Amino acid sequence: MDVADLGLPVDVPSTALFTDQYEFTMVQAALKSGTADRRSVFEVFTRRLPEGRRYGVVAGTGRLLDAVENFRFDAGVLGFLREAGIVDEPTLAWLADYRFSGNIWGYPEGEVYFPGSPILRVEGSFAECVLLETVILSVLNHDSAIAAAASRMSSAAAGRRLIEMGARRTHELAAVAASRAAYVGGFDSTSDLAAGFRYAIPTVGTSAHAFTLLHDSERGAFRAQVDSLGRGTTLLVDTYDVAEAVRTAVEVAGPELGAVRIDSGDLLLVAHRVRRQLDELGAVDTRIVVTSDLDEYAIASLAAAPVDAYGVGTQLVTGSGHPTCSMVYKLVARARSADPAAPLEPVAKKSLGGKMSIGGRKWAARRLDEHGVAEAEVVGLGEVPAELADRQLLVPLVTAGEVVGREPLDAARDRHIAARSALPMSAIQLSRGEPVLPTEYA
Amino acid sequence: MDVADLGLPVDVPSTALFTDQYEFTMVQAALKSGTADRRSVFEVFTRRLPEGRRYGVVAGTGRLLDAVENFRFDAGVLGFLREAGIVDEPTLAWLADYRFSGNIWGYPEGEVYFPGSPILRVEGSFAECVLLETVILSVLNHDSAIAAAASRMSSAAAGRRLIEMGARRTHELAAVAASRAAYVGGFDSTSDLAAGFRYAIPTVGTSAHAFTLLHDSERGAFRAQVDSLGRGTTLLVDTYDVAEAVRTAVEVAGPELGAVRIDSGDLLLVAHRVRRQLDELGAVDTRIVVTSDLDEYAIASLAAAPVDAYGVGTQLVTGSGHPTCSMVYKLVARARSADPAAPLEPVAKKSLGGKMSIGGRKWAARRLDEHGVAEAEVVGLGEVPAELADRQLLVPLVTAGEVVGREPLDAARDRHIAARSALPMSAIQLSRGEPVLPTEYA
Repeated sequence: MDVADLGLPVDVPSTALFTDQYEFTMVQAALKSGTADRRSVFEVFTRRLPEGRRYGVVAGTGRLLDAVENFRFDAGVLGFLREAGIVDEPTLAWLADYRFSGNIWGYPEGEVYFPGSPILRVEGSFAECVLLETVILSVLNHDSAIAAAASRMSSAAAGRRLIEMGARRTHELAAVAASRAAYVGGFDSTSDLAAGFRYAIPTVGTSAHAFTLLHDSERGAFRAQVDSLGRGTTLLVDTYDVAEAVRTAVEVAGPELGAVRIDSGDLLLVAHRVRRQLDELGAVDTRIVVTSDLDEYAIASLAAAPVDAYGVGTQLVTGSGHPTCSMVYKLVARARSADPAAPLEPVAKKSLGGKMSIGGRKWAARRLDEHGVAEAEVVGLGEVPAELADRQLLVPLVTAGEVVGREPLDAARDRHIAARSALPMSAIQLSRGEPVLPTEYA
Repeated sequence: MDVADLGLPVDVPSTALFTDQYEFTMVQAALKSGTADRRSVFEVFTRRLPEGRRYGVVAGTGRLLDAVENFRFDAGVLGFLREAGIVDEPTLAWLADYRFSGNIWGYPEGEVYFPGSPILRVEGSFAECVLLETVILSVLNHDSAIAAAASRMSSAAAGRRLIEMGARRTHELAAVAASRAAYVGGFDSTSDLAAGFRYAIPTVGTSAHAFTLLHDSERGAFRAQVDSLGRGTTLLVDTYDVAEAVRTAVEVAGPELGAVRIDSGDLLLVAHRVRRQLDELGAVDTRIVVTSDLDEYAIASLAAAPVDAYGVGTQLVTGSGHPTCSMVYKLVARARSADPAAPLEPVAKKSLGGKMSIGGRKWAARRLDEHGVAEAEVVGLGEVPAELADRQLLVPLVTAGEVVGREPLDAARDRHIAARSALPMSAIQLSRGEPVLPTEYA
């Protein structure tokens, strides 16, 4: 479905204020000191994965490209910066013409990552690059956290359908991004209509307990739903007594009933009972959807239960215990001028206390063993060794200010499944462990 | 500052698609079955607080009122619903005229709440009320989670200044709402310019490590910053050697230096050393700001350290371990027609498994003991007892479709401080415990 012509009610006209104030004051001070146009390289990476996680998942790249493209200063934004006294007039004049003109490379969306992976590399003048820090990190830290949880859940679901239904548990626009990231991580559909609208993710949904309670009887509610949505609909059977509801559901809809949904109780036990009852009633093709406080562990524990689809809310949109990643955006190299010929000098924070980083513009490649299974994330400076040349991870996303890395969301979703499949088998264990690949510095 | 005329680049034209699909299919089925206009009462409440928390904080009310007011269906939205086959033509016609015409009462923003508190009550026809479920829960669940964490941090900070700087750790628009909720919970300022723009929250920020690394020397960077931002600025002193940086900072800016910021290391130890050094250098009024991975426990542990302000990021915007609340939106009563004279009948889900709720339209009041300290959250049906009549918690927010509950953000912030102060002393203990007030059903 083409959504391009429908307008974008969940977009915003400018992303320029999704920015920490210090980015602006640094630009002002650098403009004054003559360092603003020094050629610079910033990189995004994490020092660690969330505790116990085996791999991370890059998500949000498509949104990030939108954010960079829309990072502009109109009169309203400039007026605010002036009135609030954030920056001076020369800086406002510079901002008025702002348009990112540099280059961005990154791990493509859906790719996996490890501690130290240079997930994104932003090159240009110091001033044009530093301004993008906050919004780039917001997008990647949020979306990658959701995609990582989604990926674990989709491993656990082992091919059964996964429905994202967490909108009500997170900020209304974070929810739209969460649906998108969940899709990248392997989910099949969403309850969130804004995500359907904005990203053409398949949407699903039929009814809640309120609909049953609204009617004078459960039978009346089921009849009303089937009359309106057809026999293929999903009837919610746990408002009163489940066995009674299943019997009524099949009486009302016939054995063609599409599905029943169970939203409370011991799902393992109830799913077995309901399956048996449906089969006895002849509704052998009626599916069972479960939706109560699921996470990847609960999904895994239902592997042997007769469940056809899982609806996941809270634990998905909160990253299953890890609602954010710890990605940072660091200046790793800079020249002493804007001259393309001026050498890039590696730079890095040196102070003690665990926040060290490694200076220099990096490449990254994933080395495979003789069976084609990934065995190391290799990160290096300078020339890429010949044997890793075709295993490089960074791809061009923005070239001379033009977005070149846009792709359909399904490409990211397919890439994630392929990248995860190429990891050692232990990657998809849910138990806590070390990153499944070591990061080697070449 | 009046931001009303600056446009709203972080707003959206319509909130109507921040909605789970089943709300729409329920409306369709209810329109067909003739139950859509039954007079209905929905309530928002939680069954429990996050584990160990003593109280919850209502936040997002102002945003919720915006969301209800902007819940409209323009041609683009209707076109999407039609093309995607979400609802039928009679439903689309009904949606085209949608405007919430009912009443909403709620705990005012900043108020505290407990398990079972009827935080919000929405009354109108079934169809007009059910549609608002998802967006209302998104706003309240997100914003209240942030405000609860902020409240604990502001208790721990005991009057020292708190800066919200978590934008990069959460979705870019969730970040704006998080700044707002943090302000309600007691924070003083934010690094997020969009939050300054949208909600007139004071913004702060000066420089990052990248600015020091950009320059040929730390001294050069400090000079550039002071030249541009003045001696009152905050210099970041942990890029290389802290003691060296503090010496350089005072040499460059003089004893009038506004503040130094420490972003790594053992903050307790380093803060003491830096304070001593600043005092020896005559910079006795130079403040110390700390900003590294703080949460309410770290803030409390620095109570005896010479720290003037705390910058908090990750743990604030992720709710300090509890990134969402478990608020639900339940149909608690309905009539059998639209007739205002038709009696409201309490309804409630009955199925076993821990998701019980209590039917009926509720009032709530906070009972005080003889010293004026809160001693119970009292929730009841029917008439409010005379002795609790002036302690009622629900206030009108929307009356006959008109928003009547809008107020300045500072009113919510002040209310929160007052409400928290009226709780028993143990409310502000950071240790895990039971809700500080019992909920009694009258």
